[in-house]
Amino acid sequence: MSMMNNLEKMPDQQELHLEDLKLPQDLKKLTFPQCRRIAKEIRSLMVRVISKNGGHLASNLGAVELTMALHRVFDSPQDKFVWDVGHQCYTHKILTGRIKEFRTIRKENGISGFPKPEESPHDCFISGHSSTSISVACGIAESMRLRHDDHHVIAVIGDGAMTGGLAFEGLNNGGKLKNLIVILNDNNMSISGNVGSVSGYLRSIREKESYVRTKQAVEKVLVNTPHVGMPVAKVLKGTKDGVKNMLVRQATLFEQMGFVYFGPVDGHNQQDLEEVLRTAKRCECPVFIHVKTIKGKGYLPAEKNPSQFHGVSKFDVMTGNPEVAGADCYSAVFGKELARLGKENPRICAITAAMKYGTGLQYFEAEVPDRFYDVGIAEQHAVTFAAGLASTGMIPVFAVYSTFLQRAYDQLVHDIAIGGQHVVLGIDRAGVVGEDGETHQGMFDIPMLTSIPGTTIYAPACYDELKLCMQQAILRDSGLAAVRYPRGDEKKMSFPKDSLNTEYTYTEDEKADILLISYGRVYDAVHRAHCTCASSGYHSSLLKLTKIHPLEQELAELTKRYRKIIFFEESMGNGGIAALFGTMLAENHFGGEYVRVTCEEFLRHASIPTILDKLGLSEHAVCRYIYEYGTKN
Amino acid sequence: MSMMNNLEKMPDQQELHLEDLKLPQDLKKLTFPQCRRIAKEIRSLMVRVISKNGGHLASNLGAVELTMALHRVFDSPQDKFVWDVGHQCYTHKILTGRIKEFRTIRKENGISGFPKPEESPHDCFISGHSSTSISVACGIAESMRLRHDDHHVIAVIGDGAMTGGLAFEGLNNGGKLKNLIVILNDNNMSISGNVGSVSGYLRSIREKESYVRTKQAVEKVLVNTPHVGMPVAKVLKGTKDGVKNMLVRQATLFEQMGFVYFGPVDGHNQQDLEEVLRTAKRCECPVFIHVKTIKGKGYLPAEKNPSQFHGVSKFDVMTGNPEVAGADCYSAVFGKELARLGKENPRICAITAAMKYGTGLQYFEAEVPDRFYDVGIAEQHAVTFAAGLASTGMIPVFAVYSTFLQRAYDQLVHDIAIGGQHVVLGIDRAGVVGEDGETHQGMFDIPMLTSIPGTTIYAPACYDELKLCMQQAILRDSGLAAVRYPRGDEKKMSFPKDSLNTEYTYTEDEKADILLISYGRVYDAVHRAHCTCASSGYHSSLLKLTKIHPLEQELAELTKRYRKIIFFEESMGNGGIAALFGTMLAENHFGGEYVRVTCEEFLRHASIPTILDKLGLSEHAVCRYIYEYGTKN
Repeated sequence: MSMMNNLEKMPDQQELHLEDLKLPQDLKKLTFPQCRRIAKEIRSLMVRVISKNGGHLASNLGAVELTMALHRVFDSPQDKFVWDVGHQCYTHKILTGRIKEFRTIRKENGISGFPKPEESPHDCFISGHSSTSISVACGIAESMRLRHDDHHVIAVIGDGAMTGGLAFEGLNNGGKLKNLIVILNDNNMSISGNVGSVSGYLRSIREKESYVRTKQAVEKVLVNTPHVGMPVAKVLKGTKDGVKNMLVRQATLFEQMGFVYFGPVDGHNQQDLEEVLRTAKRCECPVFIHVKTIKGKGYLPAEKNPSQFHGVSKFDVMTGNPEVAGADCYSAVFGKELARLGKENPRICAITAAMKYGTGLQYFEAEVPDRFYDVGIAEQHAVTFAAGLASTGMIPVFAVYSTFLQRAYDQLVHDIAIGGQHVVLGIDRAGVVGEDGETHQGMFDIPMLTSIPGTTIYAPACYDELKLCMQQAILRDSGLAAVRYPRGDEKKMSFPKDSLNTEYTYTEDEKADILLISYGRVYDAVHRAHCTCASSGYHSSLLKLTKIHPLEQELAELTKRYRKIIFFEESMGNGGIAALFGTMLAENHFGGEYVRVTCEEFLRHASIPTILDKLGLSEHAVCRYIYEYGTKN
Repeated sequence: MSMMNNLEKMPDQQELHLEDLKLPQDLKKLTFPQCRRIAKEIRSLMVRVISKNGGHLASNLGAVELTMALHRVFDSPQDKFVWDVGHQCYTHKILTGRIKEFRTIRKENGISGFPKPEESPHDCFISGHSSTSISVACGIAESMRLRHDDHHVIAVIGDGAMTGGLAFEGLNNGGKLKNLIVILNDNNMSISGNVGSVSGYLRSIREKESYVRTKQAVEKVLVNTPHVGMPVAKVLKGTKDGVKNMLVRQATLFEQMGFVYFGPVDGHNQQDLEEVLRTAKRCECPVFIHVKTIKGKGYLPAEKNPSQFHGVSKFDVMTGNPEVAGADCYSAVFGKELARLGKENPRICAITAAMKYGTGLQYFEAEVPDRFYDVGIAEQHAVTFAAGLASTGMIPVFAVYSTFLQRAYDQLVHDIAIGGQHVVLGIDRAGVVGEDGETHQGMFDIPMLTSIPGTTIYAPACYDELKLCMQQAILRDSGLAAVRYPRGDEKKMSFPKDSLNTEYTYTEDEKADILLISYGRVYDAVHRAHCTCASSGYHSSLLKLTKIHPLEQELAELTKRYRKIIFFEESMGNGGIAALFGTMLAENHFGGEYVRVTCEEFLRHASIPTILDKLGLSEHAVCRYIYEYGTKN
């Protein structure tokens, strides 16, 4: 501890380790060379842990210096950092008292891979979805103003997230907040030609490499004006054209939104970063700082062999999501089947919102590049764009993670369903997704869709059924049709192939007075439990749904003879299929016992099998229900 | 008819009337003076009809010349016009074969007040909600490209709608579509200081009055380059600075999004408008045209006495929505009560998304201006901004129309509910709204909210109960709490005052074997029917819910003794309260008859009482249910 107290006097040569620091406060005492050493240790720790636990590596490696600079210039938690998406928060977690817990990241009972206020006062707001940070920061900044608190709120947002409409709404409303700083963490790898004009615009700025001159100009301004708000503009009127150019003309998009723009600044030069942050802190106006970072920075395999690194890490460049639709997973099967259908039918179009690899659409793009669309992180646009395509006779298929479809509820209702447009949703990662936790579980797609008139939903239980459902939804259905499938791969099926279809399969056991209903991934667990329990005399009948909505009326007649019905469902309960089935039973004089096994709350991060078991949706859990409610005979 | 064939030769003096024209084709034959006369007739027709039927007057009066110019320069329906929001489409309807039907606008079985493809091939896409047009147009433009159709798609969007994130997503993705034209219908009255940076930016352009020079520059460019795409930029490099300034520097925001910018152009000068449109038609690149229009243009009361006109027409300036929370309607009661609470409690903040008057929040603004926020048409931002405020201990109340809340489903889930932020929603115009039709009915708020864990919903049945619910939701509840109330005013109550509370009221009739359940506005109809039928020997018990979600478990016990239960609900059925109640009954061994009277499809425009009666939610309809299912004794 005494070493710590004398930190500022320590020679750079002295061995100083992350574990020795009292964080975050000791950070401010470090020299820049010490910072570099600590940054190296942070990277090393992250690579070590993430290689075991999984998680977002590249984006976190790119944000080490930026995060350190923020903690050295500002005072968290009085100053608030709002991390957009949140997958770049690992350094922040390490620097705010969670070094020891870091090895538990994304594990059950461990710390989350995203900011979480319950973990630390330094995590001021949860995140997980894209483009929320500026709006959140506006709220916090406004609250500070009302409470006469003159600390700052700093939103850190990636260039991918800037394409989301919510970020634009936030910028449009943030242009007057004096204590708001927006940091654009502009990552070279995120910029891709196909995600629209904003990316191209950012690239054009980035390539100008004009930071140094900008910085000098800023310094010049600040010397003359201690309180910088409108004065910035005034002072600039008197400066030379070249300098004005750097500060004003170059970054008009953000200037026009009411922000003073600083940048681009090298996001791995701690000294430069801190200088700009200090400058921003002195401005009494909203500031937009454009920081250039390198994804994967400091990770040796990437630095030594960048081309191989690019090849291997086929993660989605927009999101840094390392999940790629591999050879055998639902996403890949979906992507390949869609490519096959698209080659045959010139009306089929495929749309992704920045998740080309995650959703398996690279297969479609390879076969039918002309009808493949990556709209960037813009789910609202994706849906309304699809509706526009459909209105002229095309058959658009939007492949989207369940959790991100939440962004487009109004567009589903207003732009697709009211007009009866035939649009197909491929709802990927539907149900439990595991380690990413609350913000990413795909539990809301069914309640969303069942509320919308004229919607058809399929939940295939295996790859072959996925293909059947896609053909049905794309080629034969009309209106809004959705096919939902889980994250990961098909497990070895326990149920017979001849039960595959796009409607339902009822398997009656004459000895049974209990009926088990399920669909999708969970059906296999139910079927296994059914077999296991039957062998010990506990008989049950089975109803496997494939088209889960709308429910056929005949199902109520078919099933109401049972004394007990248990519905196992991997979805939020309210608005879910089990709830609708229950309503249908009530409307059909069912007087027996009805039990729903479903999800009623937000699900914390843990492995998928762990979560399914807790929900009562594993084979083991289903057996328990059969033993409890069934009868031995 | 022979007159029509010689139209182009007719002298201007000749009396020519709208009714004599074969539309839209004859439009192209008119001289500009004839156009002016026809424009006058169109305005006169609109004022006459809207004064009787209600509707959007000012926005339509402002778009007469623009619409005529579009139909004269382009060929509808091969060229497609996509009207954002759609409330400015009356001239378009008049010009495309619906003059006779125009007097039926917004009436049951009459034409809709919004674009509707089923009415006419000239209405290429439905609208009603804001900011969708650019994305829809992108889809149509892309489909045209794929089908080698070289017609154009023209999105017409107001400056208010430009603040919605979806419009930005559309612009970001539209910057490469060669046959896309976006027309900004920039209406002076829409621009208000409190709706963010984009409005300020547009105002700054608008005030420059530089159209004429711009036009000349454009002409100059086009003479040299028949195919204008990238060449525009190239040619401009060789032109003088002054001209470049007009075309490029002035409008960087849109240029940066990949569009060629023309404007601002006077939206009431038909000749100028058509010239610019023809120029845009010749460009082989996406074009953004900035048109200045005057809301209410040509309406004499407004022109003669503009100040009085401004004073009287207290409609929401952002939307042109003439509905103002008057002295006695749910919105006004809500606004006044919130103002009272806000004065007493310094943590309460009020937020609107461009609906200050519609939601009654002008009362709050008058009392507590510092904590009042109009964020423009940006519901996503409104919710996430509220979450940011709440995270620091403020109590934000977002007053929003039910139908527009659909825009913010993900933000409710992700930014409010997961973190358990205490945010209150005032859901105005919940349920049937009447003449605005499918796109505006408030039928989805309950399914949306019931799917989200930890949400509380109240549905007061009268003004006094609204106040009770607000106090409960704002001051005593935690997490996401919503109070929903209908459009319009409280009807004379038939039920006793002592049944007002924030939970439920059960009124048992010992002679009854039938139970009627309801909440909100509909409860009064149910109570009246209950009284009417009881007097003729048909007895029923009543359950009035005020807190409609979550349902108390004890209600299942309380009610399952009834042989028949009928639930009357003004909401979409799936995910609604009646469905959840039915599920609860099934889970509690209810073996009787359960009937839900609710909404299962999109509701066309008609008066509120008409629609409620059709749904089975009027007093008369409820009586029919009692007679059908009840027993006389």
